[in-house]
Amino acid sequence: MPILVMKFGGTSVATLDRIKRAAKRVGLEVAKGYDVIVIVSAMAGKTNELVGWVEETSPLFDAREYDAVVSSGENVTAGLMALTLQEMDIPARSWQGWQVPLLTTSTHSSARIEDIPPENILRKFGEGMKVAVIAGFQGVSPEGRITTLGRGGSDTSAVAFAAAFNAERCDIYTDVDGVYTTDPRICEKARKLDKIAFEEMLELASLGAKVLQTRSVELAMRYKVRLRVLSSFEEPSDTAGTLVCDEEEIMESKVVAGVAHSRDEAKLTLLSVADRPGIAASIFTALSDANVNVDMIVQNIAENERTDMTFSCPTNQVARAETALAEMKAAGKVNYSELVADTNVCKISVVGIGMRSHTGVAAKMFQVLSNENINIKVITTSEIKISVLIDRKYMELAVQALHDAFELDKAA
Amino acid sequence: MPILVMKFGGTSVATLDRIKRAAKRVGLEVAKGYDVIVIVSAMAGKTNELVGWVEETSPLFDAREYDAVVSSGENVTAGLMALTLQEMDIPARSWQGWQVPLLTTSTHSSARIEDIPPENILRKFGEGMKVAVIAGFQGVSPEGRITTLGRGGSDTSAVAFAAAFNAERCDIYTDVDGVYTTDPRICEKARKLDKIAFEEMLELASLGAKVLQTRSVELAMRYKVRLRVLSSFEEPSDTAGTLVCDEEEIMESKVVAGVAHSRDEAKLTLLSVADRPGIAASIFTALSDANVNVDMIVQNIAENERTDMTFSCPTNQVARAETALAEMKAAGKVNYSELVADTNVCKISVVGIGMRSHTGVAAKMFQVLSNENINIKVITTSEIKISVLIDRKYMELAVQALHDAFELDKAA
Repeated sequence: MPILVMKFGGTSVATLDRIKRAAKRVGLEVAKGYDVIVIVSAMAGKTNELVGWVEETSPLFDAREYDAVVSSGENVTAGLMALTLQEMDIPARSWQGWQVPLLTTSTHSSARIEDIPPENILRKFGEGMKVAVIAGFQGVSPEGRITTLGRGGSDTSAVAFAAAFNAERCDIYTDVDGVYTTDPRICEKARKLDKIAFEEMLELASLGAKVLQTRSVELAMRYKVRLRVLSSFEEPSDTAGTLVCDEEEIMESKVVAGVAHSRDEAKLTLLSVADRPGIAASIFTALSDANVNVDMIVQNIAENERTDMTFSCPTNQVARAETALAEMKAAGKVNYSELVADTNVCKISVVGIGMRSHTGVAAKMFQVLSNENINIKVITTSEIKISVLIDRKYMELAVQALHDAFELDKAA
Repeated sequence: MPILVMKFGGTSVATLDRIKRAAKRVGLEVAKGYDVIVIVSAMAGKTNELVGWVEETSPLFDAREYDAVVSSGENVTAGLMALTLQEMDIPARSWQGWQVPLLTTSTHSSARIEDIPPENILRKFGEGMKVAVIAGFQGVSPEGRITTLGRGGSDTSAVAFAAAFNAERCDIYTDVDGVYTTDPRICEKARKLDKIAFEEMLELASLGAKVLQTRSVELAMRYKVRLRVLSSFEEPSDTAGTLVCDEEEIMESKVVAGVAHSRDEAKLTLLSVADRPGIAASIFTALSDANVNVDMIVQNIAENERTDMTFSCPTNQVARAETALAEMKAAGKVNYSELVADTNVCKISVVGIGMRSHTGVAAKMFQVLSNENINIKVITTSEIKISVLIDRKYMELAVQALHDAFELDKAA
C-alpha cells in the first residue's frame, strides 16, 4: 500500500468536533487505498498553557522536565484521534514518541531527529491497521527521556515520518489554504500558488510567511518529501492547497514566485568605524554572542580610513545590540562615532528560482520602487532572492507595485 | 539512606501554589535525611476532563487509547513537581510509568502491577538525586503500551513503590487529616485515630470511608507497608494523620475501632422461593452475571419447602437486579412469588480487630439499637465486623448511639 502522511495542527484538532472533521479527511485517504500516518499537534492553546506553567514554576527550567511536561498535550490528541477513527470503523492506534520510537539527540526542547525505525508501524500496517496516529513534536533521547523538537516541531515530525516511510506525500493541514504569491491582507490580487519549489518556500518561510516551519522545509528538501499545505476548514479536493516540491516537478515556473515582507526588521548603522582588517569580525562576533540575529549587512567604501557599517536585526533585539556595541566601544575593541538605529523600516523581498537563469529581476525591482518614489536603504541578494529595506510606510505600496509588475496575479 | 514514599492527591497538586506547598513538605523530609519517592496524581479535575473527552469520542472506547489519553495528567504534575523541587535546590527528576518501568498486566484501564525494578531509581539516588517524582496511576504493559491502574490508582502506585523500595513509610497526602472513629459530619464526637490496623482500615475503606482505595490497603497489608494518611493543608508535624499499620504495632487497641455507615445500600427480598439445593447458586450467579454487587445475604428458615431470601446491593443496581431476576423467573430457572425492594435503608457497621478476642460486641450493638427503638432488618458478621441494615432515617441516631456506647470519643 502507498503511504500518506497527514499532519493536523493545533487549530485543526482544537475541539472534539474538529478532531472528528480531521478524522473524516483521513477516512477519505484510507478509502483511496492509502495506509496513513497521522501526526497531531496538541489542541490549540494547550502547549502554551503547559509552557506557561513550566516558566512560572522555574524561569531557568531543566529542559528535560520542560519536555516531559509540554509533550503531554500531543498524547491527548493522538489518543482521541485514534478513538475517533476507530468509531468510524477504521483500524487505528496511537503512538507516543518513545513508542515508535522517534529517536532524537539529547538536546532537550530543541532536539534533532536521529532516526525513525519504521518496523513497528509497518508490521501493524501489515496486520491490517490502516492509520498510525503519532503524537507530534516529541521523541526520546538515548537516555530514554522525552525530548521535544522545538515550537512548531510537529511539522518537522511529519516530514521526518514521510521521509522514513518513503511516503507518497506529506499533507500539512493548517488554518490557511495554501501558499500565496504575497500576503492577501496587503495585496488583494495575491494568488494561491498550486506549486512552489522547496528553495522558494524556504526563502518565503524564513521571510515571515508563517505557513511552515523553516526546519521542516529544509528537511523536506533534503529528503525530497513532497509537502502539501492546505486548510482543514475547506472542502476536500485533490487540487486543494499548495504543493511544495522539487523544482523539476514545476514545469512552467515564473521567474518570480512571490513577494514577501517583514515588519520585524530594524536598521542599525555604525558611523565612522575605523576601517581595518578584522573589524567586521569583531563587531559581528560580539553581536552573535549577545544573541542578536543579524540579517542584512552592508559596508560602504572607506574614506580617510573610516567607513560606515549598516546591518539589520529583529526590532526586539535592537536594545541588546546597542548594549553589546556600547560595551565593545567602552572596552576599546571597536571605534565608531555614533550608532544610529532606525526601527521605522521594513523588508521587501522578491523570491523565485527563475532568477538563477533570468537576469534583470533586480533592475526591474529597483525601477518599480523608483517609479513609486520609494527610497531603497539597504540591498542584499541571494541566488533566488532580492531583499531591500525601505521606509515602513511604503510597505503596502511596494508589495502591490511589485506584485503587479511581476504579474503574479496571473498563473504561469 | 532510608527511603520515604510521599503521595499527593489531585487536590494537593491542583495549582502551582499547591505544588509548591507539597514540595516544601518533601523538602522537610529530605532535610531529615530521607531519599524520597514522590507519587503525584493529576491536578484536580484534569483526569475527569480527559475521561469525559474519551467517553464523548467513543462510548465503547478502546481501553488502550483511554489509558494513553487519561495518563497524561500525571505526566504534567510529575514534571512540574520536579521543577519546583529543583527551584528549591533539591536534586530531583520525574519518571513516567514506562520510564521506571512500572510493569503491569495488559488489563487496560484496571491493570495490575507485576513488578517495579528499582535499579534505575536507586542508581540515581546513589548519584546524589534526593527525590524521584513518579507520575502515579500509570504503568506499561508487556506490549509496551501505557496502562492505568483504575481510578484512585495513584494510592496503589504509592504503596507498590513503598513495597518495591522497602520504604520506611508511605505517606498519603489528601484533603482529610486522617481516619476517624466515624464520620465527623454525622457525629461531632468523632475522634481522629492515631493508628489503625490494616484489617480495620480495609473494612472501613470498603464500607465507604473514602480515605484510601481498598486496593492500596490490601497491597499495604500484604507487603506490610506502613501507611500514613494525612492532610496537605495542615501544618507539618510528626504526629499528624493516622498510621495504618500491622496490628502488632498497636499496643493498646480498643475492641471497636470505628463505626461506619453507608447510604448506598438497598435491600431486596425474594418471597416464597422454592427451597431446593442449588437455588441460591443460580440466583446469585445470575446477579453476578448481571454485574450486581451483592453485599449481604440472608436466608430464612424454610416452611413448606418455600423460603424467603434477602440480599443487599448498591441502590443504583436495583433495577438491574430486578431485570435479571424477572428474566430468570420467566425462564423457569427460579420460582418466587414476589420481589420486594427497599431502597430506604442504610448499613451501619462496627469494626475492630479486638472483636476476634472479645465477645459481646454484637450483643452490645443490638442492645444499643434496641434502646433507641431501631429495628434491625438484616445482620451479617465477619471476624472483625458486624453490619446491620436499618431504616435510613435512623442512620445518624444509630451512629451517634454506637459511638457513645463503645466510648470511641476516648483514646485507648
